[in-house]
Amino acid sequence: MVINKTKNKIDSKTHQVFGINSVYSILKNDKYKIENIDILDNSSVTDNIFIKDLLKNFVQLTHLINKDTFYRKYGEKRTQGIVVTFSDDITKDLPSFKETVGNYCLLIVDNVTDPQNFGQIIRTSECAGVDGIIVPERNSVGVTDTVLQVSQGSFCNISIYSVTNLNQTLSQLKDDDFWTIAVENGIDAKPWDQIDYNGKIAIVIGSEGQGIKPLVLKSCDFKATIPMQGETSSLNVSAATAVVLFERLRQIQPC
Amino acid sequence: MVINKTKNKIDSKTHQVFGINSVYSILKNDKYKIENIDILDNSSVTDNIFIKDLLKNFVQLTHLINKDTFYRKYGEKRTQGIVVTFSDDITKDLPSFKETVGNYCLLIVDNVTDPQNFGQIIRTSECAGVDGIIVPERNSVGVTDTVLQVSQGSFCNISIYSVTNLNQTLSQLKDDDFWTIAVENGIDAKPWDQIDYNGKIAIVIGSEGQGIKPLVLKSCDFKATIPMQGETSSLNVSAATAVVLFERLRQIQPC
Repeated sequence: MVINKTKNKIDSKTHQVFGINSVYSILKNDKYKIENIDILDNSSVTDNIFIKDLLKNFVQLTHLINKDTFYRKYGEKRTQGIVVTFSDDITKDLPSFKETVGNYCLLIVDNVTDPQNFGQIIRTSECAGVDGIIVPERNSVGVTDTVLQVSQGSFCNISIYSVTNLNQTLSQLKDDDFWTIAVENGIDAKPWDQIDYNGKIAIVIGSEGQGIKPLVLKSCDFKATIPMQGETSSLNVSAATAVVLFERLRQIQPC
Repeated sequence: MVINKTKNKIDSKTHQVFGINSVYSILKNDKYKIENIDILDNSSVTDNIFIKDLLKNFVQLTHLINKDTFYRKYGEKRTQGIVVTFSDDITKDLPSFKETVGNYCLLIVDNVTDPQNFGQIIRTSECAGVDGIIVPERNSVGVTDTVLQVSQGSFCNISIYSVTNLNQTLSQLKDDDFWTIAVENGIDAKPWDQIDYNGKIAIVIGSEGQGIKPLVLKSCDFKATIPMQGETSSLNVSAATAVVLFERLRQIQPC
Protein backbone atom coordinates (compact mmCIF):
# COMPACT_ATOMS: atom_id res chain seq x y z
CA MET A 1 0.00 0.00 0.00
CA VAL A 2 1.38 3.36 -1.03
CA ILE A 3 0.97 6.06 1.58
CA ASN A 4 -0.46 9.21 0.10
CA LYS A 5 1.50 11.86 1.97
CA THR A 6 -0.81 14.75 1.28
CA LYS A 7 -3.98 12.98 2.30
CA ASN A 8 -4.23 9.62 3.99
CA LYS A 9 -7.44 8.54 2.28
CA ILE A 10 -9.22 5.52 3.68
CA ASP A 11 -9.65 4.04 0.24
CA SER A 12 -6.12 4.50 -1.16
CA LYS A 13 -5.65 0.76 -1.29
CA THR A 14 -6.53 -2.44 -2.96
CA HIS A 15 -10.20 -3.43 -3.09
CA GLN A 16 -12.09 -6.60 -3.86
CA VAL A 17 -15.55 -7.12 -5.31
CA PHE A 18 -17.30 -10.34 -6.19
CA GLY A 19 -20.49 -11.65 -7.75
CA ILE A 20 -21.73 -11.16 -11.29
CA ASN A 21 -23.27 -7.66 -10.96
CA SER A 22 -20.29 -6.07 -9.22
CA VAL A 23 -17.71 -7.80 -11.39
CA TYR A 24 -19.57 -6.85 -14.57
CA SER A 25 -19.59 -3.17 -13.54
CA ILE A 26 -15.93 -3.03 -12.62
CA LEU A 27 -14.71 -4.87 -15.73
CA LYS A 28 -16.91 -2.84 -18.07
CA ASN A 29 -15.74 0.42 -16.58
CA ASP A 30 -12.18 1.49 -17.33
CA LYS A 31 -11.91 3.74 -14.26
CA TYR A 32 -9.97 1.31 -12.04
CA LYS A 33 -6.75 -0.66 -12.33
CA ILE A 34 -7.64 -4.37 -12.34
CA GLU A 35 -4.97 -6.34 -10.44
CA ASN A 36 -6.31 -9.88 -10.45
CA ILE A 37 -9.37 -11.95 -11.36
CA ASP A 38 -9.92 -15.28 -9.59
CA ILE A 39 -12.47 -17.66 -11.03
CA LEU A 40 -13.63 -20.87 -9.38
CA ASP A 41 -12.85 -23.76 -11.70
CA ASN A 42 -15.97 -25.29 -13.25
CA SER A 43 -18.08 -22.40 -11.99
CA SER A 44 -21.08 -21.38 -14.09
CA VAL A 45 -19.90 -17.75 -14.09
CA THR A 46 -17.94 -18.44 -17.28
CA ASP A 47 -21.21 -19.35 -19.00
CA ASN A 48 -22.35 -15.75 -18.52
CA ILE A 49 -21.82 -14.27 -21.98
CA PHE A 50 -21.41 -10.70 -20.69
CA ILE A 51 -18.71 -11.67 -18.19
CA LYS A 52 -17.05 -14.00 -20.71
CA ASP A 53 -16.85 -11.22 -23.25
CA LEU A 54 -15.30 -8.78 -20.79
CA LEU A 55 -12.78 -11.33 -19.51
CA LYS A 56 -11.16 -11.37 -22.98
CA ASN A 57 -9.61 -8.00 -22.10
CA PHE A 58 -7.98 -9.38 -18.94
CA VAL A 59 -6.53 -12.73 -20.04
CA GLN A 60 -3.18 -12.12 -18.29
CA LEU A 61 -4.87 -11.30 -15.00
CA THR A 62 -7.44 -14.10 -14.94
CA HIS A 63 -6.76 -17.26 -12.93
CA LEU A 64 -8.83 -20.42 -12.70
CA ILE A 65 -8.61 -21.64 -9.11
CA ASN A 66 -9.54 -25.07 -7.79
CA LYS A 67 -12.35 -25.42 -5.26
CA ASP A 68 -10.19 -25.96 -2.14
CA THR A 69 -7.94 -22.97 -2.81
CA PHE A 70 -10.86 -20.74 -3.81
CA TYR A 71 -12.84 -21.46 -0.63
CA ARG A 72 -9.69 -21.11 1.50
CA LYS A 73 -9.14 -17.64 0.00
CA TYR A 74 -12.72 -16.39 -0.03
CA GLY A 75 -14.51 -18.45 2.61
CA GLU A 76 -18.23 -18.03 2.88
CA LYS A 77 -18.56 -14.92 0.71
CA ARG A 78 -21.30 -15.17 -1.88
CA THR A 79 -18.84 -14.80 -4.75
CA GLN A 80 -20.85 -16.58 -7.48
CA GLY A 81 -17.43 -18.01 -8.41
CA ILE A 82 -15.64 -14.78 -9.33
CA VAL A 83 -13.56 -12.27 -7.35
CA VAL A 84 -11.87 -9.18 -8.81
CA THR A 85 -9.06 -7.33 -7.04
CA PHE A 86 -8.45 -3.76 -8.17
CA SER A 87 -6.72 -0.62 -7.02
CA ASP A 88 -7.05 3.18 -7.34
CA ASP A 89 -8.79 5.77 -5.24
CA ILE A 90 -12.53 5.44 -5.34
CA THR A 91 -13.15 8.89 -3.93
CA LYS A 92 -12.07 12.16 -5.53
CA ASP A 93 -11.57 15.67 -4.30
CA LEU A 94 -14.54 17.98 -4.70
CA PRO A 95 -14.26 20.12 -7.83
CA SER A 96 -15.91 23.50 -8.42
CA PHE A 97 -19.48 23.35 -9.72
CA LYS A 98 -19.62 27.06 -10.58
CA GLU A 99 -20.10 26.40 -14.29
CA THR A 100 -22.66 23.61 -13.82
CA VAL A 101 -26.14 24.55 -15.03
CA GLY A 102 -29.58 22.91 -15.03
CA ASN A 103 -30.75 20.13 -12.78
CA TYR A 104 -27.83 18.81 -10.79
CA CYS A 105 -28.00 16.88 -7.54
CA LEU A 106 -25.34 16.06 -4.98
CA LEU A 107 -26.10 13.79 -2.04
CA ILE A 108 -24.22 14.52 1.18
CA VAL A 109 -23.98 11.55 3.53
CA ASP A 110 -23.28 12.66 7.12
CA ASN A 111 -22.69 10.33 10.07
CA VAL A 112 -23.79 7.16 8.26
CA THR A 113 -21.76 4.40 9.89
CA ASP A 114 -23.50 1.24 8.64
CA PRO A 115 -21.83 -0.14 5.50
CA GLN A 116 -25.06 -1.86 4.38
CA ASN A 117 -26.87 1.46 4.46
CA PHE A 118 -24.09 3.36 2.72
CA GLY A 119 -23.83 0.71 -0.02
CA GLN A 120 -27.60 0.84 -0.60
CA ILE A 121 -27.49 4.64 -0.67
CA ILE A 122 -24.84 4.56 -3.44
CA ARG A 123 -26.94 2.09 -5.45
CA THR A 124 -30.16 4.08 -5.01
CA SER A 125 -28.40 7.36 -5.87
CA GLU A 126 -27.07 5.97 -9.12
CA CYS A 127 -30.52 4.60 -10.01
CA ALA A 128 -32.09 7.99 -9.24
CA GLY A 129 -29.70 9.96 -11.44
CA VAL A 130 -27.80 11.67 -8.62
CA ASP A 131 -24.68 13.38 -10.04
CA GLY A 132 -22.35 12.79 -7.11
CA ILE A 133 -22.08 11.69 -3.49
CA ILE A 134 -20.14 13.63 -0.87
CA VAL A 135 -18.85 11.82 2.19
CA PRO A 136 -16.84 13.29 5.06
CA GLU A 137 -13.52 11.62 5.83
CA ARG A 138 -14.45 11.30 9.49
CA ASN A 139 -17.62 10.15 11.34
CA SER A 140 -18.86 8.13 8.40
CA VAL A 141 -18.26 4.55 7.37
CA GLY A 142 -15.91 5.30 4.47
CA VAL A 143 -15.84 3.47 1.20
CA THR A 144 -15.03 -0.03 2.44
CA ASP A 145 -15.19 -3.26 0.45
CA THR A 146 -18.54 -4.10 2.10
CA VAL A 147 -19.92 -0.75 0.95
CA LEU A 148 -18.69 -1.42 -2.61
CA GLN A 149 -20.17 -4.92 -2.57
CA VAL A 150 -23.60 -3.81 -1.32
CA SER A 151 -23.67 -1.08 -3.98
CA GLN A 152 -23.69 -3.90 -6.59
CA GLY A 153 -21.13 -2.18 -8.78
CA SER A 154 -22.97 1.15 -8.92
CA PHE A 155 -19.96 2.92 -7.34
CA CYS A 156 -18.29 2.60 -10.77
CA ASN A 157 -20.89 4.87 -12.32
CA ILE A 158 -21.20 7.72 -9.84
CA SER A 159 -18.63 10.20 -8.55
CA ILE A 160 -17.89 9.89 -4.83
CA TYR A 161 -16.19 12.91 -3.29
CA SER A 162 -14.33 12.85 0.00
CA VAL A 163 -14.22 16.06 2.02
CA THR A 164 -12.59 17.03 5.31
CA ASN A 165 -15.10 19.59 6.55
CA LEU A 166 -18.78 19.44 5.66
CA ASN A 167 -19.48 23.00 6.77
CA GLN A 168 -16.85 24.35 4.41
CA THR A 169 -18.27 22.10 1.68
CA LEU A 170 -21.76 23.53 2.21
CA SER A 171 -20.35 27.08 2.00
CA GLN A 172 -18.58 26.22 -1.23
CA LEU A 173 -21.73 24.68 -2.70
CA LYS A 174 -23.75 27.75 -1.77
CA ASP A 175 -21.13 29.91 -3.50
CA ASP A 176 -21.59 27.62 -6.50
CA ASP A 177 -25.34 28.43 -6.48
CA PHE A 178 -26.66 25.25 -4.86
CA TRP A 179 -29.71 25.15 -2.59
CA THR A 180 -29.05 22.87 0.35
CA ILE A 181 -31.76 20.60 1.78
CA ALA A 182 -31.41 18.57 4.98
CA VAL A 183 -33.59 15.48 5.35
CA GLU A 184 -34.40 15.71 9.06
CA ASN A 185 -37.46 15.96 11.25
CA GLY A 186 -38.04 19.23 13.04
CA ILE A 187 -40.74 21.82 13.60
CA ASP A 188 -39.35 24.00 10.81
CA ALA A 189 -39.20 21.11 8.31
CA LYS A 190 -41.54 20.89 5.32
CA PRO A 191 -43.00 17.60 4.05
CA TRP A 192 -40.55 16.04 1.56
CA ASP A 193 -42.88 16.54 -1.40
CA GLN A 194 -43.33 20.26 -0.75
CA ILE A 195 -39.66 21.02 -1.37
CA ASP A 196 -38.63 22.24 -4.83
CA TYR A 197 -35.85 19.98 -6.09
CA ASN A 198 -35.31 21.74 -9.43
CA GLY A 199 -31.94 23.26 -10.30
CA LYS A 200 -28.66 22.78 -8.46
CA ILE A 201 -29.33 21.13 -5.12
CA ALA A 202 -27.41 19.34 -2.40
CA ILE A 203 -29.42 16.93 -0.24
CA VAL A 204 -27.97 16.11 3.20
CA ILE A 205 -28.88 12.87 4.95
CA GLY A 206 -27.72 11.65 8.37
CA SER A 207 -27.69 8.44 10.34
CA GLU A 208 -30.76 7.05 12.09
CA GLY A 209 -29.24 7.38 15.51
CA GLN A 210 -27.32 10.61 15.48
CA GLY A 211 -28.89 12.38 12.53
CA ILE A 212 -27.12 15.25 10.81
CA LYS A 213 -24.53 17.18 12.84
CA PRO A 214 -26.11 20.35 14.35
CA LEU A 215 -23.76 22.77 12.60
CA VAL A 216 -24.33 21.10 9.25
CA LEU A 217 -28.09 21.14 9.81
CA LYS A 218 -28.00 24.85 10.69
CA SER A 219 -26.21 25.66 7.43
CA CYS A 220 -28.93 24.12 5.25
CA ASP A 221 -31.46 26.32 3.42
CA PHE A 222 -34.38 23.92 3.82
CA LYS A 223 -35.35 20.97 5.93
CA ALA A 224 -37.43 18.13 4.49
CA THR A 225 -39.32 15.69 6.68
CA ILE A 226 -41.02 12.42 5.77
CA PRO A 227 -44.02 12.23 8.10
CA MET A 228 -44.38 8.82 9.71
CA GLN A 229 -47.82 7.21 9.55
CA GLY A 230 -47.34 4.48 12.12
CA GLU A 231 -45.80 3.85 15.50
CA THR A 232 -42.25 3.32 14.24
CA SER A 233 -40.44 6.59 14.68
CA SER A 234 -38.31 6.62 11.57
CA LEU A 235 -37.54 5.05 8.23
CA ASN A 236 -34.22 3.39 7.69
CA VAL A 237 -31.83 6.03 6.24
CA SER A 238 -31.47 4.25 2.89
CA ALA A 239 -35.28 4.01 2.53
CA ALA A 240 -35.61 7.74 3.37
CA THR A 241 -32.96 8.50 0.75
CA ALA A 242 -34.89 6.53 -1.88
CA VAL A 243 -38.10 8.41 -1.05
CA VAL A 244 -36.50 11.86 -1.38
CA LEU A 245 -34.38 11.11 -4.47
CA PHE A 246 -37.31 9.68 -6.44
CA GLU A 247 -39.54 12.59 -5.42
CA ARG A 248 -36.83 14.83 -6.94
CA LEU A 249 -36.88 12.71 -10.09
CA ARG A 250 -40.66 12.95 -10.28
CA GLN A 251 -40.44 16.73 -10.06
CA ILE A 252 -37.65 17.28 -12.57
CA GLN A 253 -38.68 14.82 -15.25
CA PRO A 254 -40.23 16.36 -18.37
CA CYS A 255 -44.04 16.08 -18.45
CA MET B 1 -43.87 -26.27 20.13
CA VAL B 2 -47.53 -27.08 19.53
CA ILE B 3 -48.27 -28.47 16.09
CA ASN B 4 -51.14 -26.64 14.49
CA LYS B 5 -52.93 -29.49 12.73
CA THR B 6 -54.95 -27.38 10.37
CA LYS B 7 -52.06 -25.31 9.09
CA ASN B 8 -48.41 -25.84 9.87
CA LYS B 9 -47.48 -22.15 9.94
CA ILE B 10 -43.79 -21.29 9.90
CA ASP B 11 -44.17 -18.84 12.73
CA SER B 12 -46.26 -20.91 15.18
CA LYS B 13 -43.38 -20.87 17.60
CA THR B 14 -41.34 -18.94 20.04
CA HIS B 15 -39.58 -15.81 18.81
CA GLN B 16 -36.85 -13.59 20.14
CA VAL B 17 -36.22 -9.91 19.60
CA PHE B 18 -33.55 -7.72 21.12
CA GLY B 19 -32.39 -4.11 21.23
CA ILE B 20 -34.24 -1.11 22.61
CA ASN B 21 -36.49 -0.32 19.60
CA SER B 22 -37.73 -3.86 19.08
CA VAL B 23 -38.13 -4.58 22.79
CA TYR B 24 -40.00 -1.32 23.35
CA SER B 25 -42.48 -2.18 20.58
CA ILE B 26 -43.15 -5.70 21.78
CA LEU B 27 -43.57 -4.76 25.45
CA LYS B 28 -45.79 -1.78 24.67
CA ASN B 29 -48.01 -3.85 22.43
CA ASP B 30 -50.24 -6.42 24.12
CA LYS B 31 -50.60 -8.58 21.00
CA TYR B 32 -48.05 -11.24 21.97
CA LYS B 33 -47.47 -13.52 24.92
CA ILE B 34 -44.21 -12.51 26.60
CA GLU B 35 -42.38 -15.61 27.86
CA ASN B 36 -39.13 -14.24 29.21
CA ILE B 37 -37.05 -11.06 29.43
CA ASP B 38 -33.28 -11.36 29.91
CA ILE B 39 -31.35 -8.25 30.89
CA LEU B 40 -27.58 -8.01 31.05
CA ASP B 41 -26.59 -7.10 34.62
CA ASN B 42 -25.25 -3.53 34.88
CA SER B 43 -26.41 -2.77 31.35
CA SER B 44 -27.47 0.81 30.60
CA VAL B 45 -30.75 -0.45 29.12
CA THR B 46 -32.35 -0.15 32.57
CA ASP B 47 -31.58 3.58 32.52
CA ASN B 48 -33.95 3.95 29.58
CA ILE B 49 -37.06 5.39 31.23
CA PHE B 50 -39.43 4.03 28.58
CA ILE B 51 -38.14 0.47 28.88
CA LYS B 52 -37.96 0.74 32.69
CA ASP B 53 -41.58 1.83 32.84
CA LEU B 54 -42.75 -1.05 30.65
CA LEU B 55 -40.72 -3.63 32.57
CA LYS B 56 -42.89 -2.95 35.66
CA ASN B 57 -45.62 -4.98 33.94
CA PHE B 58 -43.36 -8.02 33.57
CA VAL B 59 -41.59 -8.30 36.91
CA GLN B 60 -42.11 -12.09 37.14
CA LEU B 61 -40.65 -12.68 33.68
CA THR B 62 -37.61 -10.41 33.95
CA HIS B 63 -34.21 -11.86 34.80
CA LEU B 64 -30.96 -10.04 35.40
CA ILE B 65 -28.20 -12.20 33.91
CA ASN B 66 -24.48 -11.93 34.54
CA LYS B 67 -22.13 -11.07 31.67
CA ASP B 68 -20.72 -14.58 31.08
CA THR B 69 -24.13 -16.26 30.96
CA PHE B 70 -25.65 -13.49 28.84
CA TYR B 71 -22.89 -13.68 26.19
CA ARG B 72 -22.98 -17.47 26.24
CA LYS B 73 -26.72 -17.32 25.51
CA TYR B 74 -26.78 -14.51 22.97
CA GLY B 75 -23.26 -14.43 21.52
CA GLU B 76 -22.42 -11.57 19.21
CA LYS B 77 -25.96 -10.30 18.68
CA ARG B 78 -26.31 -6.54 19.09
CA THR B 79 -28.75 -6.92 21.95
CA GLN B 80 -28.12 -3.59 23.72
CA GLY B 81 -28.37 -5.71 26.87
CA ILE B 82 -31.97 -6.89 26.54
CA VAL B 83 -33.59 -9.92 24.89
CA VAL B 84 -37.31 -10.71 24.91
CA THR B 85 -38.71 -14.16 24.16
CA PHE B 86 -42.36 -14.29 23.15
CA SER B 87 -44.85 -16.61 21.48
CA ASP B 88 -48.00 -16.47 19.36
CA ASP B 89 -48.59 -16.46 15.64
CA ILE B 90 -47.31 -13.34 13.97
CA THR B 91 -49.23 -13.94 10.78
CA LYS B 92 -53.00 -14.15 10.48
CA ASP B 93 -55.41 -15.53 7.93
CA LEU B 94 -56.66 -13.08 5.34
CA PRO B 95 -60.08 -11.68 6.27
CA SER B 96 -62.66 -10.29 3.87
CA PHE B 97 -62.23 -6.62 2.97
CA LYS B 98 -65.63 -6.32 1.31
CA GLU B 99 -66.84 -3.75 3.83
CA THR B 100 -63.62 -1.70 3.81
CA VAL B 101 -64.03 1.74 2.28
CA GLY B 102 -61.77 4.67 1.45
CA ASN B 103 -58.01 4.57 1.01
CA TYR B 104 -56.73 1.16 1.99
CA CYS B 105 -53.46 -0.42 0.93
CA LEU B 106 -52.22 -3.99 1.12
CA LEU B 107 -48.67 -4.87 0.14
CA ILE B 108 -48.16 -8.32 -1.38
CA VAL B 109 -44.61 -9.62 -1.06
CA ASP B 110 -43.87 -12.34 -3.64
CA ASN B 111 -40.65 -14.34 -3.91
CA VAL B 112 -38.67 -12.14 -1.49
CA THR B 113 -36.16 -14.50 0.08
CA ASP B 114 -33.73 -12.11 1.80
CA PRO B 115 -34.68 -11.54 5.47
CA GLN B 116 -32.94 -8.13 5.52
CA ASN B 117 -35.10 -6.97 2.64
CA PHE B 118 -38.31 -8.39 4.09
CA GLY B 119 -37.60 -6.81 7.50
CA GLN B 120 -36.96 -3.42 5.88
CA ILE B 121 -40.13 -3.78 3.80
CA ILE B 122 -42.21 -4.34 6.97
CA ARG B 123 -40.64 -1.27 8.61
CA THR B 124 -41.13 0.93 5.53
CA SER B 125 -44.73 -0.27 5.11
CA GLU B 126 -45.62 0.63 8.65
CA CYS B 127 -44.01 4.06 8.27
CA ALA B 128 -45.93 4.62 5.01
CA GLY B 129 -49.33 3.78 6.52
CA VAL B 130 -49.83 0.48 4.71
CA ASP B 131 -52.79 -1.38 6.22
CA GLY B 132 -51.47 -4.93 5.87
CA ILE B 133 -48.81 -7.14 4.32
CA ILE B 134 -49.60 -10.37 2.51
CA VAL B 135 -46.93 -13.05 2.26
CA PRO B 136 -47.24 -16.46 0.60
CA GLU B 137 -46.40 -19.47 2.76
CA ARG B 138 -44.03 -20.81 0.12
CA ASN B 139 -41.28 -19.18 -2.02
CA SER B 140 -40.78 -16.30 0.38
CA VAL B 141 -38.56 -15.92 3.40
CA GLY B 142 -41.29 -16.21 6.03
CA VAL B 143 -41.47 -14.23 9.23
CA THR B 144 -38.21 -15.33 10.83
CA ASP B 145 -36.54 -13.81 13.88
CA THR B 146 -34.08 -11.96 11.59
CA VAL B 147 -37.01 -10.43 9.71
CA LEU B 148 -38.62 -9.35 13.00
CA GLN B 149 -35.34 -7.88 14.23
CA VAL B 150 -34.66 -5.89 11.05
CA SER B 151 -38.22 -4.53 11.16
CA GLN B 152 -37.25 -2.80 14.42
CA GLY B 153 -40.46 -3.74 16.16
CA SER B 154 -42.73 -2.45 13.41
CA PHE B 155 -44.21 -5.95 12.91
CA CYS B 156 -46.15 -5.29 16.14
CA ASN B 157 -48.06 -2.45 14.50
CA ILE B 158 -49.05 -3.87 11.13
CA SER B 159 -51.12 -6.91 10.18
CA ILE B 160 -49.19 -9.63 8.36
CA TYR B 161 -51.34 -12.15 6.50
CA SER B 162 -50.13 -15.56 5.38
CA VAL B 163 -51.75 -17.07 2.28
CA THR B 164 -51.34 -20.37 0.45
CA ASN B 165 -52.10 -19.24 -3.09
CA LEU B 166 -51.40 -15.72 -4.30
CA ASN B 167 -53.54 -16.07 -7.42
CA GLN B 168 -56.56 -16.96 -5.33
CA THR B 169 -55.74 -14.06 -3.03
CA LEU B 170 -55.65 -11.64 -5.95
CA SER B 171 -59.05 -12.94 -7.13
CA GLN B 172 -60.47 -12.47 -3.67
CA LEU B 173 -59.09 -8.94 -3.45
CA LYS B 174 -60.58 -8.08 -6.84
CA ASP B 175 -63.94 -9.40 -5.63
CA ASP B 176 -63.47 -7.12 -2.63
CA ASP B 177 -63.07 -4.14 -5.02
CA PHE B 178 -59.30 -3.72 -4.91
CA TRP B 179 -57.22 -2.54 -7.87
CA THR B 180 -54.04 -4.59 -8.11
CA ILE B 181 -50.71 -3.02 -9.10
CA ALA B 182 -47.52 -4.98 -9.82
CA VAL B 183 -44.20 -3.16 -9.40
CA GLU B 184 -42.29 -4.64 -12.32
CA ASN B 185 -40.52 -3.43 -15.45
CA GLY B 186 -42.12 -4.23 -18.77
CA ILE B 187 -43.20 -2.55 -21.97
CA ASP B 188 -46.77 -2.28 -20.72
CA ALA B 189 -45.73 -0.73 -17.38
CA LYS B 190 -46.43 2.91 -16.52
CA PRO B 191 -43.99 5.09 -14.57
CA TRP B 192 -44.67 4.65 -10.86
CA ASP B 193 -45.92 8.21 -10.42
CA GLN B 194 -48.52 7.90 -13.18
CA ILE B 195 -50.46 5.20 -11.36
CA ASP B 196 -53.51 6.25 -9.31
CA TYR B 197 -53.08 4.90 -5.79
CA ASN B 198 -56.36 6.23 -4.38
CA GLY B 199 -58.97 3.86 -2.98
CA LYS B 200 -58.55 0.18 -2.20
CA ILE B 201 -55.32 -1.06 -3.75
CA ALA B 202 -53.01 -4.06 -3.48
CA ILE B 203 -49.40 -3.46 -4.51
CA VAL B 204 -47.38 -6.55 -5.50
CA ILE B 205 -43.60 -6.57 -5.24
CA GLY B 206 -41.18 -9.35 -6.15
CA SER B 207 -37.56 -10.26 -5.55
CA GLU B 208 -34.70 -8.66 -7.46
CA GLY B 209 -33.62 -11.89 -9.05
CA GLN B 210 -36.83 -13.69 -9.90
CA GLY B 211 -39.34 -10.86 -9.83
CA ILE B 212 -43.04 -11.55 -9.47
CA LYS B 213 -44.31 -14.98 -10.55
CA PRO B 214 -45.68 -14.82 -14.14
CA LEU B 215 -49.21 -15.92 -13.22
CA VAL B 216 -49.38 -13.38 -10.40
CA LEU B 217 -48.09 -10.66 -12.71
CA LYS B 218 -50.67 -11.54 -15.34
CA SER B 219 -53.49 -11.19 -12.80
CA CYS B 220 -52.59 -7.60 -11.89
CA ASP B 221 -54.62 -4.68 -13.27
CA PHE B 222 -51.64 -2.32 -13.66
CA LYS B 223 -47.88 -2.50 -13.81
CA ALA B 224 -45.73 0.24 -12.31
CA THR B 225 -42.10 0.74 -13.28
CA ILE B 226 -39.43 2.90 -11.69
CA PRO B 227 -37.26 4.03 -14.60
CA MET B 228 -33.56 3.69 -13.87
CA GLN B 229 -31.37 6.71 -14.59
CA GLY B 230 -27.96 5.08 -14.42
CA GLU B 231 -26.15 1.92 -15.45
CA THR B 232 -27.36 -0.20 -12.53
CA SER B 233 -30.30 -2.19 -13.79
CA SER B 234 -32.50 -2.14 -10.71
CA LEU B 235 -33.15 -0.74 -7.29
CA ASN B 236 -32.99 -3.01 -4.30
CA VAL B 237 -36.54 -4.33 -3.66
CA SER B 238 -36.88 -2.54 -0.30
CA ALA B 239 -35.82 0.78 -1.88
CA ALA B 240 -38.33 0.27 -4.72
CA THR B 241 -41.04 -0.45 -2.12
CA ALA B 242 -40.22 2.79 -0.29
CA VAL B 243 -40.46 4.79 -3.54
CA VAL B 244 -43.87 3.38 -4.48
CA LEU B 245 -45.42 3.50 -1.00
CA PHE B 246 -44.46 7.13 -0.42
CA GLU B 247 -45.69 8.12 -3.88
CA ARG B 248 -49.03 6.61 -2.80
CA LEU B 249 -48.90 8.61 0.41
CA ARG B 250 -48.13 11.79 -1.52
CA GLN B 251 -51.18 11.17 -3.72
CA ILE B 252 -53.67 10.29 -1.01
CA GLN B 253 -52.74 12.88 1.61
CA PRO B 254 -55.15 15.80 1.97
CA CYS B 255 -53.91 18.98 0.23
